[in-house]
Amino acid sequence: MTPVFDNSTIHFDILRQRACNMRWAEQEEGVIPLTAADMDFPCAPEIVQAVVSYAQAGYFSYTPKTGLPEFKESIARMLNEKKKEPISPDLILPIDSAARAMSVIAKTVLRPGDEAIVCDPVDYLFKTSMEAAGAKIILFPMEFKNGRIDFSRLEDYITPRTKMFGLCNPHNPLGMCYPLEDLDHILKLSEKYGFYIMNDEIWSDIIYSDARFHSILELGAERNARTLSVFGFSKSYGIAGLRVGCLYGTDQKLFDQAVDASQADSTIGGISSLSQIAGMACLDQCGYWLDAFVKHLQGNRDYALERISRMPGISCRKPEATFVLFADIRGLPVSALEFTEFAKKNFRVAVVPGGETFFGPGSEGYIRICLATSREILEEGLNRLEEALKAIGER
Amino acid sequence: MTPVFDNSTIHFDILRQRACNMRWAEQEEGVIPLTAADMDFPCAPEIVQAVVSYAQAGYFSYTPKTGLPEFKESIARMLNEKKKEPISPDLILPIDSAARAMSVIAKTVLRPGDEAIVCDPVDYLFKTSMEAAGAKIILFPMEFKNGRIDFSRLEDYITPRTKMFGLCNPHNPLGMCYPLEDLDHILKLSEKYGFYIMNDEIWSDIIYSDARFHSILELGAERNARTLSVFGFSKSYGIAGLRVGCLYGTDQKLFDQAVDASQADSTIGGISSLSQIAGMACLDQCGYWLDAFVKHLQGNRDYALERISRMPGISCRKPEATFVLFADIRGLPVSALEFTEFAKKNFRVAVVPGGETFFGPGSEGYIRICLATSREILEEGLNRLEEALKAIGER
Repeated sequence: MTPVFDNSTIHFDILRQRACNMRWAEQEEGVIPLTAADMDFPCAPEIVQAVVSYAQAGYFSYTPKTGLPEFKESIARMLNEKKKEPISPDLILPIDSAARAMSVIAKTVLRPGDEAIVCDPVDYLFKTSMEAAGAKIILFPMEFKNGRIDFSRLEDYITPRTKMFGLCNPHNPLGMCYPLEDLDHILKLSEKYGFYIMNDEIWSDIIYSDARFHSILELGAERNARTLSVFGFSKSYGIAGLRVGCLYGTDQKLFDQAVDASQADSTIGGISSLSQIAGMACLDQCGYWLDAFVKHLQGNRDYALERISRMPGISCRKPEATFVLFADIRGLPVSALEFTEFAKKNFRVAVVPGGETFFGPGSEGYIRICLATSREILEEGLNRLEEALKAIGER
Repeated sequence: MTPVFDNSTIHFDILRQRACNMRWAEQEEGVIPLTAADMDFPCAPEIVQAVVSYAQAGYFSYTPKTGLPEFKESIARMLNEKKKEPISPDLILPIDSAARAMSVIAKTVLRPGDEAIVCDPVDYLFKTSMEAAGAKIILFPMEFKNGRIDFSRLEDYITPRTKMFGLCNPHNPLGMCYPLEDLDHILKLSEKYGFYIMNDEIWSDIIYSDARFHSILELGAERNARTLSVFGFSKSYGIAGLRVGCLYGTDQKLFDQAVDASQADSTIGGISSLSQIAGMACLDQCGYWLDAFVKHLQGNRDYALERISRMPGISCRKPEATFVLFADIRGLPVSALEFTEFAKKNFRVAVVPGGETFFGPGSEGYIRICLATSREILEEGLNRLEEALKAIGER
């Protein structure tokens, strides 16, 4: 069955009950949320079917402490076949969310006094997880050169205390993929200075047809001995509430240290059996659904970019990946936070403000707009955004 | 429908696939596991129905970061009505397992250099969670006086560095409830010396008709300002694989610190939506099932005690709570570990050995026997245990 991504498939009544994190259930009636990176569509029917079928057997016994072997096999197959990442099932740890995986990676490597380089802007979980492990955060500004993020000055930010670099690939919120040369440059620095790489690939399924995703792991298992990677199922398959992701590496010793840091062996850490069943269904059965979803998103991206290009006081780089737009509103006479509050209150559309909280200081003057909805909702949300921009310009 | 707890309701084929942690899926074919405290029965049908119904709506969006409000309401109602614990829904944090809750409580309070008093024997998670937080473990031996655990010498173990006492109520593996006077004694010491109490009540639903459970929280919210408590759903309702428990307190400030330590606000910590739905079904719909389960367990307890009383080289105190027996085999010429390996290899019955790993050094010379199965399986398991005891005596 071909998946349909329009208002006929969205259950707004359920979203108003269930969709938290700045979305339908947390907004006033009538506000359109283009906020958290979570989709408005129900998940693929195969995921529901797998969960229902597992549940109906009536047993939720203790599972293997470091994850279901068949789930690890599915993940390894996906990484190898779809992303050219040479990962063995034995070096994969299913875990309760990509966020938890990032925290575990930070705890595995970082100690108080260490420095960790975090891109600015980037998703707040890099800073949050590394700071919680005791590291001092060194911000590396995301500047563009010839339309690409410029990593040529990264070496200037490295000191003898640099222990980790956070690589968000593809980059959230900038929506950029990296050419293999850039990844090679970063890896060479890791080899030269001995720092570890936290490699977050949670967005690596949402790649548009005019771009290409490369993983740093394409550069070989051996060179990536100090790389620990993260993948999650919330963005691609819409199951954030099930908390399912994984952590993986290429070096047995470092991976074992990460498993220790996860506390999975004592059962303090772990992941629900049903969440693993859902994750397995995603990988084994929902490829067709994901392809259709990305195609829908690409249409939304192009539509939104075209609309924004005709709005006052806002501009936006074309993302190659992710289902968010990161739009520049620095020309407005207000901060990003003030604008988002103004737009929500007066025009009933919610977006995520840039600034320290979510993406770092380098995101001030930007807003992030989520595209993972129907064209109808996106159109209405953009209409309201346009009105808000006009109104704030006329104030 | 009256629940039935015999072989007709056990699905051994599913247990052999799903029941890990030293149970059916991890034993050689033909071995009867009376090991991990996890039941052989499927969970109550209402739990399955709640999970299926939630899943069929197709939405697994982000949930409220600190748990579903209606789940917290259910937990508060159960604590207030069933256990006389004066807990507000606002001071309850649903969390991914009781084990995680213990870890979070330890991290909330303990710092390197602190001392934490852990009973010996007791479930390994007290030591594991407190050590992981940097504390030095001081073992308090469980001695009996007039048939009850004797806490009169607890004060001798307190030093100026004592920061926490671990209270396992009811006690696993000893199966004891505490009279309110003992809890008052412990609480007075906490008030006198200012240490915190990690109060684990995961077994508080499995109480036999000849005993009575008292929570330390019956002594009042105010006196328990330094008490952080744990409850879980794996023992009473058989849903260990869903990883669902909760952490709760009576003091807003301490509770807020625990929420911080859980990292729920950043989404690093959290609990699956489906696990919360299952937990809610337990509390709201499965009281009848739990009552029948405890009645069945009481029959098993009495049967097993009677059988053991006629076996050589083994004796066992009558537990008031929990579905485990903690049997004394110190008279045997081998260690508990040697005996359990001998019994498994030669007589195909598996039990958990006492000793450092699971329950602390004070458990050496004991074995723990799980009763959460059918009478048929228990009988066959005990037959084999008896043969193993006879054989080892004759060696």
